[in-house]
Parts: sequence; structure tokens; C-alpha cells
Amino acid sequence: MKVIVIGATGTIGRAIVQAIGNRHEVILVSFSKSMIKVDIADKTSITKMFEKIGRVDAVISAAGLAKFGPLAELTDADFALGLENKLMGQVNLVRLGIDRVNDNGSFTLTSGILSRKPMKGSIAISMVNSALEGFGRAAALEMPRGIRINIVSPNWVIDTLKAFNMDPAIGTPVEVVAQAYMQALEGTMNGEVIDAIK
Amino acid sequence: MKVIVIGATGTIGRAIVQAIGNRHEVILVSFSKSMIKVDIADKTSITKMFEKIGRVDAVISAAGLAKFGPLAELTDADFALGLENKLMGQVNLVRLGIDRVNDNGSFTLTSGILSRKPMKGSIAISMVNSALEGFGRAAALEMPRGIRINIVSPNWVIDTLKAFNMDPAIGTPVEVVAQAYMQALEGTMNGEVIDAIK
Repeated sequence: MKVIVIGATGTIGRAIVQAIGNRHEVILVSFSKSMIKVDIADKTSITKMFEKIGRVDAVISAAGLAKFGPLAELTDADFALGLENKLMGQVNLVRLGIDRVNDNGSFTLTSGILSRKPMKGSIAISMVNSALEGFGRAAALEMPRGIRINIVSPNWVIDTLKAFNMDPAIGTPVEVVAQAYMQALEGTMNGEVIDAIK
Repeated sequence: MKVIVIGATGTIGRAIVQAIGNRHEVILVSFSKSMIKVDIADKTSITKMFEKIGRVDAVISAAGLAKFGPLAELTDADFALGLENKLMGQVNLVRLGIDRVNDNGSFTLTSGILSRKPMKGSIAISMVNSALEGFGRAAALEMPRGIRINIVSPNWVIDTLKAFNMDPAIGTPVEVVAQAYMQALEGTMNGEVIDAIK
């Protein structure tokens, strides 16, 4: 399959490319570090990306920004970041990409464990991750031509926990998270939220 | 308790007022039909409402607009309506109301069954309802002074189904839905998503 991986240079994106790279033709896309770039918060940028790449069998997104911070400190702009970038950015990959994905292809987007296991400071992220899961469940009912859509909800990745000086014992190896994307890509599931938790 | 009910003239709001009106001091608020009005999509309007009413023990919201329609027809503005009105409108009731709610008070917001049981055309609504549920779970961890926050997720109300020419057999009487708000108001639950389904 010809597969776009957006966020290909991030922690999870790199692991996805590693996992599927020798099984499929992978086009790496990121905000700034790949040959092909995209700003998912900008619809024009998304359209240009699809025009550059042409038709594909699958779109995987492990991209999207949202703000961590306590309710008392989050600004309107902090909430808007998550809504415009991680949420509508990924939603718009589907809206603008649907006519560019081949029959029986797939979209796989990324939410995260904070949707259902929040922590102090995760309000804006929990909200956006939950929204993506609701979007995926509903969008699956309307996908044309056998196209599937699923949401991977990764647990904390061990490397991320280490970078934040958090306890790595609660985390999941990034290779395990990457398997969830491969299952979504190669399997038959549709409208699922796949918990990538070991 | 002194309780604000926002959306007090809607199908669910009226039933909430009916259920709690003889047990609490209820201030009815709506977009256009009450003595006290609010446009939840407008932060200034929310602040003016709280200034007019003064301190309260609880805020119940059964308000918020989001657009029903198939993915292929939803515009950017349709997605924005749900995000700015039903989602951020209710989120902003909490952000702007938190310092006006008494110790051990509560917020009760409204999502809806489409968050987890989507149907064709519910994409924008399912997304927003899920977002509210994620927000509620996370916000509960940060509420000060014993304040609680819960989300009621009402099933389809029988009267609404009838109005849409849908099968009323799948619906819930609005009086049953109203009981969920009373439980959230008078109980001890926090961070819960209360399925108002009979």
C-alpha cells in the first residue's frame, strides 16, 4: 500500500515508519523536518500536500498540538490551539483527503490516553482527544467506497515520560504503540478507538 | 440551593426546572425567552449573566448548538458552530463561573448519546459531545473548594424523536432525563458522565 504518515518525525511517527516501512510504500510528512511538509492547522497546506503526493491507500496521522496546563491558567488561545490543530487539523485531513484515498483505503488518526484517563493539567488535551474519538466513531458510518477510519489512543510512551521526568513504569514502549497503527492499517476494523496500552 | 439553569426554556431545560423548582431556588436563563438571557458563545454575555445573578450554588447547562449533517456537506462554519457554541460555550460557563459558585457547589453540563452511539449525520455533534465528556472528566480533577462537575449525556428524548419523525420507542421520557440532572445536583458524584437512558 501507498501510505502517508503525517508527524513522521515525532516519537510515535518514527516508530510507525519503522514498523510499516518495509511492508508498504511510506511517504513521510511532517511540519518542518521532512521533504514533504504540512501544517495540519492550515487547510491550504493540507490540500497542497495531497496534490503533491497524489492518490494513496492510507493516511496515518500522529500529528497535532494541544496545550498542557491547569484550567486556571489556560487561555482562550490555549483551548483554540488544541481545537484548531490536533482536532480540526486531523478532521480536515479526512475531509480534504477522502477523495484522494483509494477504494478500501483507510484513515488512522491519533487521540491519546488522556481522553479517558485524565490528569491535572490535561483539560484541553483530554477534551480534544475525546473529540477525536467521537469523530472517528461517527465518521466511520459515512465513509464511502469501503474506506475505514480508526483512532489510535496511545498510552504514555516510555520515552516521553522520561523526557518529562515522569515515572516510565506507567508507560508503553513506542514499538508497541506503533503496532496499533499497523493493525488499523492492515486490519478490517472501522470506527474503533484502539487503546495502544501494553 | 440557588441554581442557575441555562437553556431553561428548551425541552430538557423545562423538565429540569420542573424537577428541581420546588426543592431549590432556580434562576431561569435562556438565549432569548427568559428574563435573564445569555449567549453562551459570547464570553461577555456569560460574564454579564453571572454579574446580574450574583453568587450561586450550582450551574446547570442544557444549552448549546451543534450542526447535524453528513460529513460531505458540513462546512467549516458548521464544525465551528458546535465547537464555539455547545463545546466552548459550556466550557466557558465553567471557566467564568468557577469564582462565582459557592464552596461545595457544582456544574452540570450536557453532552448527549451521540457521543458514544453515533448515527449518520452526527459527526459534528458526536465530536462535540465526546469533547464535553473528556472535559468534564479532566476538569473534575482541578475544581477548587469542593466544587463538583459532571456531564449528563441524555438519550434521545421521546418528544424530540416525535418532532423529527423518528421512532419514539428508542427514546427516554424527558422527566427521566431530568432526574439525571437532579442526581448530579444533589449527589456527591464528580467527573462522571451520567447516561440519562431509561
